[in-house]
Amino acid sequence: MTIVLTKEELLAKAKKPAEDAMRLHPFYRGKVQVAPKCPIRNVVDDFAVWYTPGVAAPCRAIQENPDLAYEYSSKSNTVAIITDSTRVQGLQVGFAERDIRAVAGLPLMEGKALLFKYLGGVDAIPICLGTQDPDEIVLATKWLQPSFGGVNLEDISQPKCFRVLDKLRSDPDVEIPVWHDDQQGTATVILAGLINALRIVGKRWDEIRVALIGAGAVNVPLLPFLVASGVKLGNVVVCDSKGILHPERKDVEQKKDDYAGKWQICMESNAEGRRGGIAEAMRGADVCVAASRPGPNAILPEWVAAMADESIVFTLANPIPEIWPWEAKEAGARVVGTSRGDFPNQINNSLVFPGIFRGVLDVRAKTITDEMAIAAAEEVACWQQEKGVDEEHIVPTIEDADVFPREAAAVGVKAQEQGLARLSLSHAELLSRAEQTIRQAQDMTQFLMDKGFIQPLPEK
Amino acid sequence: MTIVLTKEELLAKAKKPAEDAMRLHPFYRGKVQVAPKCPIRNVVDDFAVWYTPGVAAPCRAIQENPDLAYEYSSKSNTVAIITDSTRVQGLQVGFAERDIRAVAGLPLMEGKALLFKYLGGVDAIPICLGTQDPDEIVLATKWLQPSFGGVNLEDISQPKCFRVLDKLRSDPDVEIPVWHDDQQGTATVILAGLINALRIVGKRWDEIRVALIGAGAVNVPLLPFLVASGVKLGNVVVCDSKGILHPERKDVEQKKDDYAGKWQICMESNAEGRRGGIAEAMRGADVCVAASRPGPNAILPEWVAAMADESIVFTLANPIPEIWPWEAKEAGARVVGTSRGDFPNQINNSLVFPGIFRGVLDVRAKTITDEMAIAAAEEVACWQQEKGVDEEHIVPTIEDADVFPREAAAVGVKAQEQGLARLSLSHAELLSRAEQTIRQAQDMTQFLMDKGFIQPLPEK
Repeated sequence: MTIVLTKEELLAKAKKPAEDAMRLHPFYRGKVQVAPKCPIRNVVDDFAVWYTPGVAAPCRAIQENPDLAYEYSSKSNTVAIITDSTRVQGLQVGFAERDIRAVAGLPLMEGKALLFKYLGGVDAIPICLGTQDPDEIVLATKWLQPSFGGVNLEDISQPKCFRVLDKLRSDPDVEIPVWHDDQQGTATVILAGLINALRIVGKRWDEIRVALIGAGAVNVPLLPFLVASGVKLGNVVVCDSKGILHPERKDVEQKKDDYAGKWQICMESNAEGRRGGIAEAMRGADVCVAASRPGPNAILPEWVAAMADESIVFTLANPIPEIWPWEAKEAGARVVGTSRGDFPNQINNSLVFPGIFRGVLDVRAKTITDEMAIAAAEEVACWQQEKGVDEEHIVPTIEDADVFPREAAAVGVKAQEQGLARLSLSHAELLSRAEQTIRQAQDMTQFLMDKGFIQPLPEK
Repeated sequence: MTIVLTKEELLAKAKKPAEDAMRLHPFYRGKVQVAPKCPIRNVVDDFAVWYTPGVAAPCRAIQENPDLAYEYSSKSNTVAIITDSTRVQGLQVGFAERDIRAVAGLPLMEGKALLFKYLGGVDAIPICLGTQDPDEIVLATKWLQPSFGGVNLEDISQPKCFRVLDKLRSDPDVEIPVWHDDQQGTATVILAGLINALRIVGKRWDEIRVALIGAGAVNVPLLPFLVASGVKLGNVVVCDSKGILHPERKDVEQKKDDYAGKWQICMESNAEGRRGGIAEAMRGADVCVAASRPGPNAILPEWVAAMADESIVFTLANPIPEIWPWEAKEAGARVVGTSRGDFPNQINNSLVFPGIFRGVLDVRAKTITDEMAIAAAEEVACWQQEKGVDEEHIVPTIEDADVFPREAAAVGVKAQEQGLARLSLSHAELLSRAEQTIRQAQDMTQFLMDKGFIQPLPEK
């Protein structure tokens, strides 16, 4: 690799989007709006159909059969993006959590809604809740359920994000998919990257040793995905800010109600019984996934050097990965990924959530299972295999628009296999429908720009 | 008047919108969608500004000063339409309340969102809450507050609608306007109609006797508007399904916690101490506003005949007014209004909510006071005066698109006078801004239709 930038240069480079954002956000005053999706030719006759008195008929039909809401309303394409703004990405500092006033998350949620529409053809509504209590977040989400075909939880701090997601997914009264993108979305794209990275190095899932650095919203939900893919739980060593997880970690045991997943990891991972810190966790590992604290120097080159040959290193801290990719490579890593778009192999959850929701909405799924997320990961990996996999191309980028309908179809098929879909559609039908919906969203955006309904960028 | 239709003919005529609605709702699968309002030229550079990493800067700015959400997000143009679907209009039967599963209200809320956009340029999000408990509706609304510039409560049954609205309007933590359209919206348009009807008959507010038939979500909130316009409370006689309200109405007193407004009416209206039913309430009245139960024959011609000369009769029951307009006229009423669009003088709250919200959003108002609603009513009346007032033209129709910006400007000015606006704008600025926003919404709709992004109506 040839790019070598100093930390200062990188930070300076990162300033540009922030400066543009501060200039452009007040100019546009928001990034999403409501638009009609039915014709209005004249207000008297058409509103008599879309509003009173005509609308009473579809209301009455839904009253008799609530599933008809998918036919007679926008429910079938509408997702709530729900946050309590306790972990808005750009504001996060390492493991630390920073509660901010809920409305502060709105620009980010609107940005997410923009991605939902443009990449997935999904109508997503940003909702910043004025409560930070996990039980209240659960309650609010349940109260919001009727109008939506799915819920994307976003930027909720840990440990409460685990409880909120688990409660909503296991509640029999919740009949729509609930997804926490920071947990499941990130795990899905990591899995996609690992599938192809392992192909490059020619290692088997059931033989690899894995070091997970950081035991938060990324790595805890990743673990079941790894196990489902064949990784032996005993071959995984997880390290948080206090060191390697093991059954004697009393600090975790004391908080096991809030950190159930993490405590389970203490009990069941690390069959060797390793003790120590990141260095010890990484020693001899084939794969390292770090989502810990911004680097550089959060992971040292000698720790990478002490991994197995042909090692795979994903360092996902923002804005600076735990170790610069070129340092990891020089230390012996074969495949390196980060969360940044200006390095190869960006591990970016924007690559999956639009496609996954497209898929669950198109079959009117009742939930998103791990299996459905894994099916999406496999499809993402497969897409890249068709285009060509090498050390610097293990996953697509968000510019690869045709990967999203592929994910949607894979997820829709899996939902049907698992008996969790309200509709029955073939892979070909799902693919074609997703392609059309997404193309229409992108064409509409272009058209609104061309016609001046979206104003051109202001002069600087 | 020449139109005389039998009840059967009218019901048959009313079937047409319902049939069209059942055919067209499943074809369009919803009436509103999300559209971008900022440019997307390429996903990498633009999403770096609209989403991470750039978006962190406006998020941080809002964290420091939450009012900046009006500058950096869609909050300034976004309203939540919140219902518990306990009184969805088309499903209501007279005074009876009919709890329906919350999602059944969604087609109606989406229709309302369509009107908000098309008539007011307002981005409104339909939310059918999965709770029917009034305190929970209040709580849910407060939790939703951060993302929205206003709240339109809709189709919540009485008496809880009174408590929900009062609690939200009086809560110091609620910093955005909360409006219950069934209460305030209807009262506003009734007031507009009365202003011009009284001009026709040449009577003074402080001299008229008023009979209000029905003591529900329409007439109870109307009363303070009448009093603010000069009506003497003692000159008002209110009649519910059990008869005239007076201080000995023990049935109301027993429920006065839930029916505080109604109990106050018992105590303070009806200075004469009338007893009896509708006939007695209407005797000698100059004005009758009925919002009671569907007619015909809920109000008899002889009761109208026993009103004062030059009487004004608004009969607002759906779908059949309490008395046919031609019967009321024959019995001696000078000015007659109904809730129907196929008779003259439609008293329709769609005539005011889009303009009122346009106004409060444009000045970022903190609440909607009765004075602001009354200012809107006066402007509506004034608009009609400029066009010409006569017995069959006391208010505009929703086809009169230029009335909405006028309402907006009047409301915005009043909000500033009352010290309840976050922005300071002149009447001319408000008018021009509202005109532009609404025109853009209508032009966008037309373009989306022309270009096929909104599909043409299907063949029958």
